[in-house]
Amino acid sequence: MNFKEELELRIKETEQIVLQFIPEEVGYQKTVIEAMNYSLKAGGKRIRPLFMQLVYQLFGATDNEIQPFMAAIEMIHTYSLVHDDLPSMDNDDYRRGKKTTHKVYGEGMAILAGDALLNYAFETALKSFDNGICFERKAKALQILARKAGIFGMIGGQTADIEAENVEQIPIEQLNFIHENKTAALLQAAVMIGAIMAGATDLQISLLEDIGFHIGLAFQIQDDILDVTSSLEQLGKATGSDEKNKKTTYVTIYGILQSKEEVSRHITEANQKILTLPGDKEFLLDLVNSLIYREK
Amino acid sequence: MNFKEELELRIKETEQIVLQFIPEEVGYQKTVIEAMNYSLKAGGKRIRPLFMQLVYQLFGATDNEIQPFMAAIEMIHTYSLVHDDLPSMDNDDYRRGKKTTHKVYGEGMAILAGDALLNYAFETALKSFDNGICFERKAKALQILARKAGIFGMIGGQTADIEAENVEQIPIEQLNFIHENKTAALLQAAVMIGAIMAGATDLQISLLEDIGFHIGLAFQIQDDILDVTSSLEQLGKATGSDEKNKKTTYVTIYGILQSKEEVSRHITEANQKILTLPGDKEFLLDLVNSLIYREK
Repeated sequence: MNFKEELELRIKETEQIVLQFIPEEVGYQKTVIEAMNYSLKAGGKRIRPLFMQLVYQLFGATDNEIQPFMAAIEMIHTYSLVHDDLPSMDNDDYRRGKKTTHKVYGEGMAILAGDALLNYAFETALKSFDNGICFERKAKALQILARKAGIFGMIGGQTADIEAENVEQIPIEQLNFIHENKTAALLQAAVMIGAIMAGATDLQISLLEDIGFHIGLAFQIQDDILDVTSSLEQLGKATGSDEKNKKTTYVTIYGILQSKEEVSRHITEANQKILTLPGDKEFLLDLVNSLIYREK
Repeated sequence: MNFKEELELRIKETEQIVLQFIPEEVGYQKTVIEAMNYSLKAGGKRIRPLFMQLVYQLFGATDNEIQPFMAAIEMIHTYSLVHDDLPSMDNDDYRRGKKTTHKVYGEGMAILAGDALLNYAFETALKSFDNGICFERKAKALQILARKAGIFGMIGGQTADIEAENVEQIPIEQLNFIHENKTAALLQAAVMIGAIMAGATDLQISLLEDIGFHIGLAFQIQDDILDVTSSLEQLGKATGSDEKNKKTTYVTIYGILQSKEEVSRHITEANQKILTLPGDKEFLLDLVNSLIYREK
């Protein structure tokens, strides 16, 4: 099996794991559950749960204890997209070639569906306590999940991002803060939780935090580059939106060439650190490179 | 000290406990933290954390282990108000006589602040794991918090509530579902968590779930009654909003008199069950009655 085939298989498997945890669409609250599931099923590369599982397995774990956390992190990522797309935020009508949640279910229901996904992420991750083993690992994993998703992580980055809109040029420190938090934080959570749940040492967990940082930065800078260079068809979403929103990006500060160099630098850092992890790293390394050097 | 004096003191103490857990307003994410804290500091009776602490103490607990959960439930209640007030939801400009969060910080930031409060609620409650004792109680308390706040609790009720808007008349089952989930669920979580954290038995926890249900129903039906009978000045928020939104309420189905009887019935049930709890129940009973038989 070559990398591409293995990746396809892995994404499919990850998707199945995530969808195992979605709630049934019944009861008077049926609509919000439909809206949650619509967003969750809308596709995407499932890279956060995939990274989580890969790291979990690198450290030698073979059981399913990681699965509730895989679903949880995908729910958190998805809720952030649902709310980001709202008219009062980025105002996007399409994502991954499909109508955004508020275009299908209305704005009020999309806000609720986002709330519901965030809440259900914790509900799902907390299910892992049911079997009564490894309480300390799970508690630590939950703490990382909450921290990296919140004001000291993703939400912090989103806030700084909103504040950067319609500002002529923000300082590079703020742009780094946005990328580190808006994008890298959840990737950090993914790989850290994989390690925590597999019983990694504090030093190893901290190494994975660094790896998540470099992957996240590379991914986001690449996203900024693609926003300028790709077409709607390739990307499955509106492009040039950064320019439209007058956003400062790596590209507006450094230009495309130097931005590409930054991507390389972060990838090199990530790869070097990945090589110090235990287990067979080949697929993980290929995955990181394929995610960054993508065309859409 | 009479009841009113003790209540004032208790509310002040509860408020201080909650505010101990709010994040500092610094960094590039400062604005979202300001918006969170603006909403959290906007007052209110803090009845959920107060009920939680009262039950905790009824069962003989005297330490501070309950405090992160007190803050967490108030954060969840607050986020639900911030999102409820949004233009695409209830579209309210004032709450408790103060401008709503989106009127002060804008819609996008209000959505983020609500998300941040929900996330930070879990982050705060998860802090309770730091001292490493009573893991099982805390895990159970967290599970109840997540469940009662989510699609099988508060968000479920909000969904059914939104769907009831502009519908000529919804079935009484749906109205009960809305009240049980939109209002009672978080009260149930409050009293159940108080009991769980104090080491109550499963039977006692289930009794508290019932008590929370009856208090919640009484409170919500009374709210429906006050929506028709109170003025803006008394309530500190717009009244007659149910009629404006064409909402089915107990009052529209049964009229004011029979609705008042329903309130009495639920209060009697709650009181009878409270009397079977351990400890000195006087203040708790007074509190329940004062909350229901209020003028605003």
